[in-house]
Amino acid sequence: MKIRVLVSYKDSVLDPQGQTVKNALHTLNYDCVKDVRQGKVFELELEEVSPEKVEEVIPEIAHTVLANPIIEKFEWQVIEE
Amino acid sequence: MKIRVLVSYKDSVLDPQGQTVKNALHTLNYDCVKDVRQGKVFELELEEVSPEKVEEVIPEIAHTVLANPIIEKFEWQVIEE
Repeated sequence: MKIRVLVSYKDSVLDPQGQTVKNALHTLNYDCVKDVRQGKVFELELEEVSPEKVEEVIPEIAHTVLANPIIEKFEWQVIEE
Repeated sequence: MKIRVLVSYKDSVLDPQGQTVKNALHTLNYDCVKDVRQGKVFELELEEVSPEKVEEVIPEIAHTVLANPIIEKFEWQVIEE
């Protein structure tokens, strides 16, 4: 089973990397881009787990290892059964 | 319009960050995790663009600014109309 976890800064947290990308895009005349936020994506390959176990374990992993819950939020989805 | 671009290493490219996360998870006894790949996610807020323009401009931006096409691949999707 393959799980995708997206980790990004909370909306209230400044994102200097995203700002830099936005500025670079404006320099290249992509003026239609109004804002950029950058985050991380993790693809986890799991084996021998029930859907219930996944529901339990993925938020736990995201909360303790992948994201810093003080400044980051995460969402996750199953991308391959 | 909001676009999400996912950038990750090509499958043939080693991913030391992902390996480190996998090792950390094994140390914490999450043995069900067989593999981890880490990548980047960009959320772009676009204004005043037609769907045709988006089809043209997003792969261009991803190819030239967000990803290094030698070692990285990308995929993108519209997450908000």
